[in-house]
Parts: sequence; structure tokens; C-alpha cells
Amino acid sequence: MSKQEVPYKIYLSEDEMPKAWYNLRADMKNKPAPLLNPGTLQPMTVEDLSPVFCEELAKQELDNDTKEIPIPDDIRNFYKMYRPSPLVRAYPLEQKLGTPAKIYYKFEGNNTSGSHKLNSAIAQAYYAKKQGLKGVTTETGAGQWGTALSMACSYMGLDCIVYMVKVSYEQKPFRREVMRTYGAKVTPSPSETTNIGKKILAEHPGTNGSLGCAISEAVEVATSTEGYRYVLGSVLNQVLLHQSVIGLETKAALDKYDIVPDVIIGCAGGGSNLGGLIAPFMGEKLRGEKDYRIVAVEPASCPSFTRGKFAYDFCDTGMVCPLAKMYTLGSDFIPSPNHAGGLRYHGMSTTLSQLYHDGLMDAVSVEQSKVFEAAEEFARIEGILPAPESAHAIAAAMAEAMKCKETGEEKTIVFGLTGTGYFDLVAYQKFNDGEMTDYIPGDDDLAESLAKLPNVDR
Amino acid sequence: MSKQEVPYKIYLSEDEMPKAWYNLRADMKNKPAPLLNPGTLQPMTVEDLSPVFCEELAKQELDNDTKEIPIPDDIRNFYKMYRPSPLVRAYPLEQKLGTPAKIYYKFEGNNTSGSHKLNSAIAQAYYAKKQGLKGVTTETGAGQWGTALSMACSYMGLDCIVYMVKVSYEQKPFRREVMRTYGAKVTPSPSETTNIGKKILAEHPGTNGSLGCAISEAVEVATSTEGYRYVLGSVLNQVLLHQSVIGLETKAALDKYDIVPDVIIGCAGGGSNLGGLIAPFMGEKLRGEKDYRIVAVEPASCPSFTRGKFAYDFCDTGMVCPLAKMYTLGSDFIPSPNHAGGLRYHGMSTTLSQLYHDGLMDAVSVEQSKVFEAAEEFARIEGILPAPESAHAIAAAMAEAMKCKETGEEKTIVFGLTGTGYFDLVAYQKFNDGEMTDYIPGDDDLAESLAKLPNVDR
Repeated sequence: MSKQEVPYKIYLSEDEMPKAWYNLRADMKNKPAPLLNPGTLQPMTVEDLSPVFCEELAKQELDNDTKEIPIPDDIRNFYKMYRPSPLVRAYPLEQKLGTPAKIYYKFEGNNTSGSHKLNSAIAQAYYAKKQGLKGVTTETGAGQWGTALSMACSYMGLDCIVYMVKVSYEQKPFRREVMRTYGAKVTPSPSETTNIGKKILAEHPGTNGSLGCAISEAVEVATSTEGYRYVLGSVLNQVLLHQSVIGLETKAALDKYDIVPDVIIGCAGGGSNLGGLIAPFMGEKLRGEKDYRIVAVEPASCPSFTRGKFAYDFCDTGMVCPLAKMYTLGSDFIPSPNHAGGLRYHGMSTTLSQLYHDGLMDAVSVEQSKVFEAAEEFARIEGILPAPESAHAIAAAMAEAMKCKETGEEKTIVFGLTGTGYFDLVAYQKFNDGEMTDYIPGDDDLAESLAKLPNVDR
Repeated sequence: MSKQEVPYKIYLSEDEMPKAWYNLRADMKNKPAPLLNPGTLQPMTVEDLSPVFCEELAKQELDNDTKEIPIPDDIRNFYKMYRPSPLVRAYPLEQKLGTPAKIYYKFEGNNTSGSHKLNSAIAQAYYAKKQGLKGVTTETGAGQWGTALSMACSYMGLDCIVYMVKVSYEQKPFRREVMRTYGAKVTPSPSETTNIGKKILAEHPGTNGSLGCAISEAVEVATSTEGYRYVLGSVLNQVLLHQSVIGLETKAALDKYDIVPDVIIGCAGGGSNLGGLIAPFMGEKLRGEKDYRIVAVEPASCPSFTRGKFAYDFCDTGMVCPLAKMYTLGSDFIPSPNHAGGLRYHGMSTTLSQLYHDGLMDAVSVEQSKVFEAAEEFARIEGILPAPESAHAIAAAMAEAMKCKETGEEKTIVFGLTGTGYFDLVAYQKFNDGEMTDYIPGDDDLAESLAKLPNVDR
């Protein structure tokens, strides 16, 4: 099909939206390692997980076999308020770069939460409501997940309690207001409202907070309050399952025009977007039907894949959550304060960790200043101000396209543009003022936090 | 056609996007009164306008006859980066209100400028570039126009100098950073960088600024700098022309499903969105083909239509611009400092003013606290955080839908959702904290600013 025939934006109709999520684990020969009970070191059961998670979500978390899980109508109807999202052909970017590569991006930022996180937030809120719960607790880093959950809870009529990493709370004053507009209660973490928060504050006064810390606080509140459960926006298998809607739509849009990508690129913090975007493509790869190069892009300041260790670790700083086998920097790793935006989690989805360990995908890291350079260039050419998280994928996709310019290869590159940067303007201001700095943790720093990994041999 | 068959979002294909703008003036029996040269009080000619505006735009400004003006390919290609915009069926809102009315909104917020303003910004930047200019100057109030123009200039490779109303500059710190990211130079107005700015500061030290004032500064810079022209985001005929793309798409989307609206509602500051949204519908009304109720919604704190006078007035505080016959509150009218968001211009599009004067449309005003109540309710139900400007139309549309609930009428209501509120969170915070206040100017206040209208009898 000739270039002219592909529009700037490929939209599916609402009828063409996926009717089921795709569970990538069902096609994996080496399943992700099970979550372990931190007391017994035995695999967690639905019963073990149920005090923390909604029951249906606990089931999804542990289900490594069911390939397709139907999307309930209520969730599909909510999806219709902002989905299907466009698959954009980056004609202006291609032209500006002078590359023979064909660049596509799946844009998940056209909703008020500003990112893909809403795809799982509404699913988790739906199951919480269905179970008759009163509310949910969660943590948020960059604020995208907290905003998404606030919107979903408001729609479903659930209370929403958000612990927001302190440094983000301060860098993104307006995120709090969006969440409040949707009726959420937002507390900077660590806080005095929980035992674990008090303990962390006592040990590290003046700490900037971390996702691991905020998770501990949110879990403590969920498990000690009647009618509440904890929900999480990334890392978990259930989240990757819900996010498969991104990849399924991407694949359906490409199929409409008989386009087969060569490279698929996504930013990776906990892995929610990347896991969702690549799901159906990785499925084909696992089933031996097709081959794709799949690339995870992470911050050089928080390099779980590229410099972490594949081992069992705690999911949170407070060590109250199950143990997960993943690429990790150690559960008390905290990115340097000059790290802007998200992608700040110390670990990585167990599913993606297993796939990476098995050599089914690549990973690269990018320094923050390069990320913002790419972000600004992209904004000026493609007209969308990206979230810093998303700009990691932009930087890698642009580098790939420039390689094609050298080699003359007409590769098709697809990347995930997960969200918009309207709430990241403190960071953009730093970049505009020439004050954006990089920080790459030293080997000694990493060795120190990795030395604290629990001694679990599985 | 049954309710089920209309999707949540009606998208046109890129091929179905308008290929020409529609010039509503061509169908008006009573044309908008001409702009007058402030010195001679004679109608402005293209030659008169050319030192201020690009030549092609000056022609469009004065052209009351050509019905269709082709959209150049470069502009259509830029449009394809964010258009066609969706016409959304507000199913969740209808259900929540329990109204038999069918509610649709044309959503113009899914682009980085966050509003419809980009539709005219790219057109104006295109003609400036085509004329070989180096750059353009402008003013911005809420910041939507300035952001849109920054994006358009960055795309076209033009310098962009923005005078931003001081109170907005302070209320919206991050707007400036978006504009800077797109390479614009942003100065709070009034400023010491112009003669008129210095004069205004001397006369009103500590002033919050106004659009009229910022216009004067931008025009002064444009007319005194080689290779620069002035561009404006609202009020002008050329802007309404470009914005007709909104109405044309809306009509095409409705036509696809054989939907004929009963009521069309838009917020009105200078009239750019309203004029664009209603254009093809008003055209049918003027040609006697169909009838629609058309409603302008304005802030009670800046009520040009509902409490202003239909008379010749200055377009700017410095009185350097042409005189326009319009509904006006007087060129030195400044909304009270507690007025949040845009829609703060003292006058109204000459085209819309004539149509209103001729009884072809209605106007209502809404108090700010009611606007934010509607905004919050809408955000929670429809998932989109609206700009305060847009929320004026939401409030009126919801009131109309509630009337239908009383009467049982199944009216079809279409309103313009012009933009998103991501940069209005200082105002939302006030609302969330219960500190949002209203201000309605007293009759004496209005009489005072209206007393200064120039004495032009035409």
C-alpha cells in the first residue's frame, strides 16, 4: 500500500475496539515467576492476595493460562469516552529527520488523566465496585496514575485515597488539584498518616519519598480500613493485562493497512505501557509466527533492566508486599532528586523481566537531558507536548530512524506515546532555562542497594 | 436512526475534512459594519490594514462576498495532525441528568494548545510565512491563543512575540513554559517594552492588564519592527472564517447520522469559537433553509452581548487599532481580578454583533461559580476537565437539557467544548477550596466605561 494511502491518524471504529484483553502469559513457555508470601516464601494464592486486592483482580494476577479475558461492557463503555486512541503516522517527523523509516506512534494522551493509565484504572475501579467496596487506596509518582484512578473512582462512585511521592507532589502542584476535582484525597508520601510513613520519616527526615514508600503507606491504609482495597497502576500482571488494549488496537490499526512493524519501542518504568503495547506482537513472537525487535527504554537514572539484577525483591520499601522476581535496583533505591517525571520504580514487571531474561526483548537507557531534547524537537514537529516518560520512547525511536537514514533501510518503527506533559512544566522550565542536569548512579550506589536484596533462592 | 447507532464519538475521515472555509458574511443580508480608520473615520481598505496585518489576511478580513475560501494544502496537512476533532455524544451526561434531550459536543481540546485557537493560528502563520515575514506579534489572555500561535509559528519557522495579560501570566505560570518550549518570547502586559505599555503603567500602576492593553503593545511592536505583522486570535472576521472548520465538521458529522440540532450553544468572548461553530447552521438560517436556536454564553463579569452597547468602539485600550461596530463594554473595561479564565475581551466580533442585533441569535450570561459547578460535574461524568471558557457553554447546555427534562422534549443540543482546563488549576483550586467568588459589574461601572465610547454615528 502506498505511503499516500495511510492517513495521518488511523482510527478504529468503536465496534473495532477489542472485546477481550489478551493475556500474554498464556503464550509464555517460561511463565513469570510467582509472587511469594514474604513470611512463608511460598507462592501467593488468591486467598493470600484477597485482603490487599479485589478478588477478581487477584484472580487475574495469578492467571497464567486464560488467553482472552472479556472486557465487561461497563468498562468498554467507559473506554468509548476516550478510545480507540489514534495510531499516528509521524509524517512531519519523518520528513524533518529525512529518514526512509516509517514512524508510527500510538497516542494514549488524549484523555484528562493524560496517559494510558486510565485503561487499567477503570478496570480496577470497576471490579472494586462490583465487589461492593467503599473505596481504594493507591500511590502515584508522576501523578498520571493517581489522576487516572481519581477519574475512574469518580465515575464508579468509589472513594479514592492517593499517596503521592513527595517530590512529585511538590513538582506538580496542579496534579493534586485535578485529583481533588475528581474527589480524591491526596497526601504527600511519606506522611504521618501511617505507621510505615512515620517510621520512614524518622529514619530519613527530609526524604523526597519514593514509589516503594508510597506503596507501603497505601497498602497499610487499605488493609487496615474496612471496605477498602489497594490498587496499583503498573508492574502487576493484571495491569499489563488491561493495558493490552493498547497493543491490540495498535495491531488492528496496522493490520487495516497491511503494515508489519520491524521495531516496537516503549518506555518502561514498571512496565504497564510497554507490556500493553507489545502484548499481541510478543504473542506472535512467542508462538513463532512473526519476529519483531522489541525495545524497552528506561531512564539512565533509574536503570532496572540495563543495570539491575534479576532476582526476588520486595515490591515496596516497607517490605509488606509480596516478593516478586524481577529486574530490580533494590527496594530502597530512590532516583536522584533531579530526576524529573515518572519511570522511577525500583523494579520491573515480572512478565517483562522474564521476557527480557529470555532474550525476547532489548533494553536501552537514555539520559534525562537527551530525553528533553527529543521531547522539545518532537513537540515542535508533531505538535504534541509529550510527557517526559513518553519522551524516552521518542528519543529511542528518533535514534532508530536516524540509523535508517545512515543505512537506507525503510524500517517501520512503532512507539508508544503514553502521555502528555502538561503537568511536567517545572521540568520543561528547567530544560528551557538550560538547568536540566543528568544523574547516573555510580556502581557503588547500585551495589549498596542491591546488597539488600532478600536471600531467596528460587 | 436509533440511539444505539450513534457512536460515542463521531469522527470524520481525513478526506471528509472541509476543503474550504465558509465565509458566513457572504450570506448575510446586513453585512457586519466596516472597520473604520480611527483618523479619518472612513472604512479601512486592504492598503490601510496591510501595515498591521498580512496582506492575504487583510483581504480575508474585508471580503464580505466570497462564500468559500479554499484551505491551502499546507494548512490542511497541519490540521490533519489534530483534526478532524470528534463530535461527542454525551451519553453519560444525558443518563446522569435523566434528560430526554440528546446532547452533543464538538471537542476542540485534543491538541497541545488545548483549544480551537490552533485552527486560526496555523492559517495566520501560514500567510505570514507566505508573505516572507520574519515574525508575528500578538496578545494572549487565558493563554490559549498564545500557545496556539507559538505552535503554529514553530511549525512554520516564524518568530513569535506574545504579550500576555499580566493577571493570566501570574495565574498560569506554566502557559509561559509551553510557549517557550515552542520558542516564543512571552512578556507580561502592560510592560516597559512599549510606549503604550509605559503610558498605561504610569496611569494605572499595579494594573492587572487587559486584552485591550496587550493588543496595543503587540500592534506597536509589529508596526515598528521590520518584517513583523500583528495577528489576533479572536474578534476579527478572518478568525471566524478560519474557525468555520469547527462548524463545517460538526455539520458533516451530524449529517452522517441524519441528525438535525434544535439548539446550538457556544461560549463567547471575542466570538472565535461561537462564530466558527455556528457558521454553516447560521448560513442555512440566513438563507431560510432551516431554523435553529443559537445561543451565545458569556461571563456575567464581562457581559458584552447582554449588557453592552452596539456601537463603534476602539478594539484596544491604546486606541491605535481600527474602530469596530460591535457590542462593547467600552475599550477600557477590565473584568474584576477574581474573574478566572478567558472570555475577558471588552467587545465582540462585528459579525456576531450584527447577527445578534438582527435577532438571529440569543445571548445569556452565567456567573463564575455556576460555571465551575458545571465544569466539575461535567469532568466527573464525561471524563474531560474543561477550560473555564468552555464550561460556560456546558452550564447553558445542561440548563437546556434540564428544561427538556421538565417539558419532556427530546431536543437535540449541540455545544462547543472549546478546550481543556489543564492550565486553569489555580482557578479550580479556588473552586475546590470553596473560595470561588462572583463579580457582576454594577450599572454605574458599565455606564462609566460606556461613556467613553467614541462619538461615531454610522
